[in-house]
Amino acid sequence: MELDALEHAARQLADTLLKQQIMAVTAESCTGGGIAQLLTEIPGSSRWFERGFVSYSNQAKQEMLGVSAATLDVHGAVSEDTALEMARGAIRHSRGHVSVAVTGIAGPDGGSPEKPVGTVWIAWGQKLGYAEALCFHFDGDRHAVRQQTILAAIQGLNDRLQ
Amino acid sequence: MELDALEHAARQLADTLLKQQIMAVTAESCTGGGIAQLLTEIPGSSRWFERGFVSYSNQAKQEMLGVSAATLDVHGAVSEDTALEMARGAIRHSRGHVSVAVTGIAGPDGGSPEKPVGTVWIAWGQKLGYAEALCFHFDGDRHAVRQQTILAAIQGLNDRLQ
Repeated sequence: MELDALEHAARQLADTLLKQQIMAVTAESCTGGGIAQLLTEIPGSSRWFERGFVSYSNQAKQEMLGVSAATLDVHGAVSEDTALEMARGAIRHSRGHVSVAVTGIAGPDGGSPEKPVGTVWIAWGQKLGYAEALCFHFDGDRHAVRQQTILAAIQGLNDRLQ
Repeated sequence: MELDALEHAARQLADTLLKQQIMAVTAESCTGGGIAQLLTEIPGSSRWFERGFVSYSNQAKQEMLGVSAATLDVHGAVSEDTALEMARGAIRHSRGHVSVAVTGIAGPDGGSPEKPVGTVWIAWGQKLGYAEALCFHFDGDRHAVRQQTILAAIQGLNDRLQ
């Protein structure tokens, strides 16, 4: 993937958030801060980026974002329910108006027949608890899966704000 | 800066943390998740990286990490006291054994005669409230300042674990 594609998506989102005068927050597992890092590379990002949660461990997902132990037990960390709870939790535990949350299997380990490496759930949240999630299946190595996740997360948030 | 230098530092830290069987956490302001992103690019990082706080706004520094309003008022977000409170707060609000916290002025705006662009405080924390901080003055543009901050933060944590 071209770095340009990521930068372009980030700048589009920045413009949208600035125009709408709203703040975004992130909740990241498999990307480990990569979405927040990309967004804050843009000068002046403090006007539209409020905070980010890198909820890498399951305990972090519970303690930082309020993901329920039952959800993690029953559906697993890489699931629609966990992604939705992360996106909602990011709004509830911040001053942000919109959120994006990602949880997936970047590899090289951690895959299974049901959830192979490259399986990623992305959820987008808004105030009042509204959230939606999509499942993606990305190809490539750990770096490639993470980069594609970052792009889909940012483009998806921008799409939902149009 | 060579990406290799960053990757090399991250892998050294990973080896150290694995050997000592301890978990690291991050608290980032000016790097916006870049430290966590770099560390979690390494396969198997969940064994030694627990969570990260991207405490970009002042409210996030208070709410995520317990930085005091008085510290922010009196010393400012880019100060030794704020960095130390971020490092201690990251330990207290996580399952991590060691932490690294960064707060600085990446630019291009936000500089002042007392704290020009490139001024960065980095603090390293351990259990029981021990923490120390150093002030850096990095040259270059926003990207360069952030990359140098990430490198110094990771190398500094590794040095303190030897």
